[in-house]
Amino acid sequence: MPSTNIAVTIIGSGNVAYQLAPALKNCGYFIENIVARNTKTGKALAKKVGAKYTNSISEIKDAGIVIIAVKDDAIADVVKQLPPLKKAMVIHTSGATDIDVLSKFKHSGVLWQVQTIQARSKVDFKKVPLIIEANNSVSKKQLKQLANSLSNLVYELNSEQRRVLHLGAVFVNNFPNHLYVLVEELLKKHKLPFEIYAPLILSTAQNGIDNPRQAQTGPANRNDKKTMSNHLALLDDKTMKKIYKLLSESISSKNLKI
Amino acid sequence: MPSTNIAVTIIGSGNVAYQLAPALKNCGYFIENIVARNTKTGKALAKKVGAKYTNSISEIKDAGIVIIAVKDDAIADVVKQLPPLKKAMVIHTSGATDIDVLSKFKHSGVLWQVQTIQARSKVDFKKVPLIIEANNSVSKKQLKQLANSLSNLVYELNSEQRRVLHLGAVFVNNFPNHLYVLVEELLKKHKLPFEIYAPLILSTAQNGIDNPRQAQTGPANRNDKKTMSNHLALLDDKTMKKIYKLLSESISSKNLKI
Repeated sequence: MPSTNIAVTIIGSGNVAYQLAPALKNCGYFIENIVARNTKTGKALAKKVGAKYTNSISEIKDAGIVIIAVKDDAIADVVKQLPPLKKAMVIHTSGATDIDVLSKFKHSGVLWQVQTIQARSKVDFKKVPLIIEANNSVSKKQLKQLANSLSNLVYELNSEQRRVLHLGAVFVNNFPNHLYVLVEELLKKHKLPFEIYAPLILSTAQNGIDNPRQAQTGPANRNDKKTMSNHLALLDDKTMKKIYKLLSESISSKNLKI
Repeated sequence: MPSTNIAVTIIGSGNVAYQLAPALKNCGYFIENIVARNTKTGKALAKKVGAKYTNSISEIKDAGIVIIAVKDDAIADVVKQLPPLKKAMVIHTSGATDIDVLSKFKHSGVLWQVQTIQARSKVDFKKVPLIIEANNSVSKKQLKQLANSLSNLVYELNSEQRRVLHLGAVFVNNFPNHLYVLVEELLKKHKLPFEIYAPLILSTAQNGIDNPRQAQTGPANRNDKKTMSNHLALLDDKTMKKIYKLLSESISSKNLKI
């Protein structure tokens, strides 16, 4: 284990905090404090990484790195409670939140992971894309070092680019997953097992990553009106009908060669 | 290599024919003829599996298994050209086409693979779900044997169930892929690399297969109106705005617990 001797305070004990704290410890950072309102998860995480637990944000010392790993809408409130730190680098971990929310600190940054962090699952940080942004050259150097020690996929982007990336993540994560939810319900009605799609879903992801334009197939892509009208006739659900129509029109309008 | 001594004629030389012919040969079937209008691909496939090439559908003998592996809208025409076979089992490979299209033959069946078959890529048929349907007990026995020799995932479904499954495949394959296409364009505008999403897309697929309801996250799922309105403000594209709104509304309406 390498050692950096840099002390880290993590505010929060949710999924991101639970993934980051041990990962940083493994990279040689000294996890000094876990600050959390939730006593149970806070103490558990502190114990896991050999840190002190506290629920008092105002006691945080002005040194090392302070990571705000709380829900997006709680960041501003945490910032308000923190003293105006001049030496510590304060970073948040939100994809949708501007770096400006941290403007009261001298050194600030953002560390956002482009990955769904499920509850307590094991994450190989080396393969998780990390998006970083810093407010000055001192914090940039420190943040780069931290990010590079965690992952092999570090991207330095500004707040606007990160916002676009956060928006795109909704289209490649939240929306496809919702389509799975809808289809699972449809199949249940017809007593069909959703697992039947497992190989198709995985190959769709892989082919889409490789080249989504080339991977586009289906009735809308070949403008096969007969199949599309048969499909629509099969759908009882009004919302699924709307989704089918809108996405099919959008596919047809792209006019990708088959 | 096991041997069945059953002669197989394949009509077509597209992607499905190119995958099926060698796979069946490996299972011990004797690929006797490749019948195709496209001389080049037809001859190449015939050579690959040691079969005879012909472009004459009417010459097909009444024996063994005849597989119609052509585009959906060409099946009826092929059936019209075929003699009214009484001994051979005639099967088509379409997910969207009823078994009734083969009613002129005594023994008929459907063999549909729930997988995207890309051009000349290597497919491990053992892991491809195969949907089968047969018109009588004789063809059912023969089709089951064929399907089970190809894959470990064989499902016997009727035409209506298969239609639902084909419709669902549009939602879990064509639509997610289209979302990737849209996002790739969005990222290009902002000079961001699409590859940044590779781990997210793969984990979305895997988590969705495991339990899509549990895997649902994002602003719409937590009814985070501020983030949704920020996202909409970032989108120039009218169609993407519509898709964002419709899918977000649909996600919110499901009211899945976070």
